[in-house]
Amino acid sequence: MTIGIIGLGIIGGSYARALKPYGYKIIGIDVNTETIDYALDNNIIDIGTTKPKEHLKECDVVFVCLYPNQTITFIKTHINDFKRDAIVVDVAGVKRHMTNQLDIFFNDDINIVLTHPIAGSEKSGISHSKENLFKNANFVITPHSKNEEEHINLVKTLARQMGFKTVSEISDVDHDKILGFTSQLTHAIAVALVNSDAYNFDTKRFIGDSYKELTRIAMINDTLWTELFFENKDFLTKNIDTFIEQLTLIRDAVHSKDTDTLQELMQKATKTRKDINNEE
Amino acid sequence: MTIGIIGLGIIGGSYARALKPYGYKIIGIDVNTETIDYALDNNIIDIGTTKPKEHLKECDVVFVCLYPNQTITFIKTHINDFKRDAIVVDVAGVKRHMTNQLDIFFNDDINIVLTHPIAGSEKSGISHSKENLFKNANFVITPHSKNEEEHINLVKTLARQMGFKTVSEISDVDHDKILGFTSQLTHAIAVALVNSDAYNFDTKRFIGDSYKELTRIAMINDTLWTELFFENKDFLTKNIDTFIEQLTLIRDAVHSKDTDTLQELMQKATKTRKDINNEE
Repeated sequence: MTIGIIGLGIIGGSYARALKPYGYKIIGIDVNTETIDYALDNNIIDIGTTKPKEHLKECDVVFVCLYPNQTITFIKTHINDFKRDAIVVDVAGVKRHMTNQLDIFFNDDINIVLTHPIAGSEKSGISHSKENLFKNANFVITPHSKNEEEHINLVKTLARQMGFKTVSEISDVDHDKILGFTSQLTHAIAVALVNSDAYNFDTKRFIGDSYKELTRIAMINDTLWTELFFENKDFLTKNIDTFIEQLTLIRDAVHSKDTDTLQELMQKATKTRKDINNEE
Repeated sequence: MTIGIIGLGIIGGSYARALKPYGYKIIGIDVNTETIDYALDNNIIDIGTTKPKEHLKECDVVFVCLYPNQTITFIKTHINDFKRDAIVVDVAGVKRHMTNQLDIFFNDDINIVLTHPIAGSEKSGISHSKENLFKNANFVITPHSKNEEEHINLVKTLARQMGFKTVSEISDVDHDKILGFTSQLTHAIAVALVNSDAYNFDTKRFIGDSYKELTRIAMINDTLWTELFFENKDFLTKNIDTFIEQLTLIRDAVHSKDTDTLQELMQKATKTRKDINNEE
């Protein structure tokens, strides 16, 4: 089987590294010549090119590892360059937008499977990609009514081979709800937290692990995340509002020194979070 | 030199483990017999007792590793049981409260040095204590006008021996401002985030590292943290308000699809957070 990977960044590069040990022929496609050279030099891909048309027809499966709107543009532009019946898979962190924009192509000669690998790094580029990026990570498929089971199953198999711990199927709407909470809200919080340092102290001398952990993702790719935030703005703004309500409950309990309420809120959070930990 | 450690929990247990290699005689004092037995069996302390009066007079330095109000009560109760000129050190995460409550004892026969080791764990108890808990962590001293330099310096030396990376001196007010931001605000955010999961999905299948990192500290010791929040309620509520303002800027930029504002906020956070990382 020949696998094409479009965009050799942190995700595409890590996909290539994770799939290569299984003996697939990996074709890497990127706009950047240096990236292709790096991928070839480091034996991450078998063939590399900056010209999609040269090798796209050979690929049985194509992972388009670009930003959401770039992914849409790439698929539209190259709709006639794919191999007949190729499975084309995205990695976008917003799914209703992808369904809406790609809907007409689900009738075409290619099989589009919409997915979201919930993994990444605050560092970008192929030099930070790694084979085990997806170890213990969650993989989500948002099936389309025109998807065939065999294609979904092939993508599931590849996801497991890449090391993902769970593979879930969920509707695009539900994906956007829950990821707007677990992923987009957390990034908004991290950015706001760093920006709310209103003091002039040498902050780094007064931090512990908690501050470091809560703010790592404040080092954010603003182009990508602006796109993700905008394409999920209804759920994200709703999630922000719900979060602010919860934080205000804590604020008010502190302000009025209401021990019972504050401890209840803390105990509830502890119990919920432990449930997640226990099943890891 | 003989060092007494009052309270063999995650902090006291780790202090004992970290100091023992330097050849000090370590006396552990805890209300729990099982904890003392564990500490003796695991060679964490040299002598252990549940009765402070038995051994307190031998200790040149006493680390009181209890919750803030327990620390105050312990020092008041045992004010006549310490060795003359002993150095008595707290570990509380709020400092104005400690200064205010202990102020009268700074004229006494003991030398109180107020400190805050910025380290911990979401797990508690001596079985989770470890020798390297303080490696690369920050240590803060809030000097009192009656403190003598030699006593401050001795505490600094012990902190460095325990592995702390930085030792800073700052006023109790400034401590409460900045720690109310880096530590208390982060814990309030983590609790609110977990509690704002308004959906009924199997959340753990839809999370990445960011959610795990932002919520680890939501597994919180509600007794300790209620005390810390209450004793710093002015700065904490102010910090929560400032944070909510910043988060609302993001929310509004998303709502109105204001790319420039959103990317500016993200770029500002990225730059600030990278500065912290670079100096590590």
